[in-house]
Amino acid sequence: MILTVTLNTALDVTYAVPALVPHSSHRVGEISERPGGKGLNVARVLSALGHETVVTGFVGGSTGAVLRELLAGPSAEAGAGPAGIAPPPRDALVTVAGNTRRTLAVVDRSTGDTTQFNEPGPQVSAGEWAAFLRTYGDLLTGADAVALCGSLPPGVHVGAYAELIRLARTAEVPVLLDTSGEPLRRGIAARPDLVKPNADELAQLTGAREPLRAARDARRRGAHSVIASLGADGMLAVTPDGVWRASPPAAVQGNPTGAGDSAVAGLLSGLVEGLSWPDRLTRAVALSTATVLAPAAGEFDGPAYAGLLPRVGVERLAPAA
Amino acid sequence: MILTVTLNTALDVTYAVPALVPHSSHRVGEISERPGGKGLNVARVLSALGHETVVTGFVGGSTGAVLRELLAGPSAEAGAGPAGIAPPPRDALVTVAGNTRRTLAVVDRSTGDTTQFNEPGPQVSAGEWAAFLRTYGDLLTGADAVALCGSLPPGVHVGAYAELIRLARTAEVPVLLDTSGEPLRRGIAARPDLVKPNADELAQLTGAREPLRAARDARRRGAHSVIASLGADGMLAVTPDGVWRASPPAAVQGNPTGAGDSAVAGLLSGLVEGLSWPDRLTRAVALSTATVLAPAAGEFDGPAYAGLLPRVGVERLAPAA
Repeated sequence: MILTVTLNTALDVTYAVPALVPHSSHRVGEISERPGGKGLNVARVLSALGHETVVTGFVGGSTGAVLRELLAGPSAEAGAGPAGIAPPPRDALVTVAGNTRRTLAVVDRSTGDTTQFNEPGPQVSAGEWAAFLRTYGDLLTGADAVALCGSLPPGVHVGAYAELIRLARTAEVPVLLDTSGEPLRRGIAARPDLVKPNADELAQLTGAREPLRAARDARRRGAHSVIASLGADGMLAVTPDGVWRASPPAAVQGNPTGAGDSAVAGLLSGLVEGLSWPDRLTRAVALSTATVLAPAAGEFDGPAYAGLLPRVGVERLAPAA
Repeated sequence: MILTVTLNTALDVTYAVPALVPHSSHRVGEISERPGGKGLNVARVLSALGHETVVTGFVGGSTGAVLRELLAGPSAEAGAGPAGIAPPPRDALVTVAGNTRRTLAVVDRSTGDTTQFNEPGPQVSAGEWAAFLRTYGDLLTGADAVALCGSLPPGVHVGAYAELIRLARTAEVPVLLDTSGEPLRRGIAARPDLVKPNADELAQLTGAREPLRAARDARRRGAHSVIASLGADGMLAVTPDGVWRASPPAAVQGNPTGAGDSAVAGLLSGLVEGLSWPDRLTRAVALSTATVLAPAAGEFDGPAYAGLLPRVGVERLAPAA
């Protein structure tokens, strides 16, 4: 079983409007809602790949109830997994008193551009954090790997990911961290197995703009392996076993929402399946590219994924980190 | 008891953002939620004025549940009614399978401007409309007056207000209609006691831009009395007993959201209390102006209302309509 942690889950809402005109009134034509937060996206892709997956983190209030209902439903859109429609990830979310946040994407149909509004998330109490730690500890005993994903809700201490990484290491469960800012900085110091920053997050962390240099710096700070996502240029992996660059066969047009989460699912499933680094990177880049190509944000295009797998290029840049 | 009907209730959500920048991502600083839809706003003001008030219409889904919870709570913000904090209006809303709509107001703190997004509302089935008609009929037997307010949700026939007006007339309950477009046109033909269009709605209905001419036209179409709201210029009343113009003492700055709903509450409470037309208009203009002055959208400033009452000017323009 693969465990994904989403401390700041969200109900992702999309409004389609003919055109966004600031300071005017808009009739919303189409509304869609889906369970969101990076770890839930990662879990959906893992399920579609055929992996037994459990999600934990916090959920609460009326928005949380809607999120849970959608999470339990059939994820028919979530790519064509090996077994057709994938079963939903198992819900081991911890209930909080506050209301789960919503994120709102307003899509301007005249241009295709998106304007995003992100609510901050519920205040998490010390007692709720303690309840989460108990659930997390129980789940770790059955986990083959764990992904810690996204931002921290108000009230959760900035060293939370460092704490969760130490617990995973004690339980000997491989742990991947995908966050940014101070939670990333603190988390890396707790020595996670993998971090998957994008180029901006890496530069913010290390001060170095050149990805290879920045990734090596992140390793010195504590991460065993650093997999930097470079957008349309693919991924850079700096690991104890070598340095690789993986690239999609061609630049693609589409919606990059969720592409990074699909890459995390590719890396984590490859780790659990014992794949080599080049094969893990190939899967991550193919999934990520197939997510950009999918019409629905955050889903991946199953046939495109299968078609991309043999066409991802992997180049070894150095024999060791 | 005064009954207000809101067929398309809404949860009114406000997001405060530092500045609205299209096609970028915004962190929402402050979120507020309140029960919305014109009839609910009218009912809150009626309650604050000390009138026993019942609300009906449609409500459903998770958003409807939040709306009902907020509706039942103490309306501490709703002006300082004669008895301090007013009891909430009684909830006689009819449950539908669909989800109550949300309206979202994004307030740009750098300019104070608002960008509005309105969801369409739930689809109402024929069975749900029939259930509403039974509830409405029952409530009419105990009502001193009824207000029919706002837009129609999908699935409700465009002659719905005309049908409700005929039922109120049969039950001998005075009925006020506050809507626009085709539902207003059809409703007026069913001979309501009062309509309260604004200048734009009146012009759209009659083709006449001059308010007095347009209001007289609306009377010929079936409305017994036409009270046109003219924004900062006050109100124009064209009634069988005479024509009046009521004006606030001075132009005020503020948020006009809900000012029209407060005017409806003023007119309806005045009717039930047997006030003269000049006194009803004075109350409507004072309430409406005190709503513009209140910091929270849709609430009225109680002390400002009391201070405005003796300062509203009413002029008789003609002895009969």
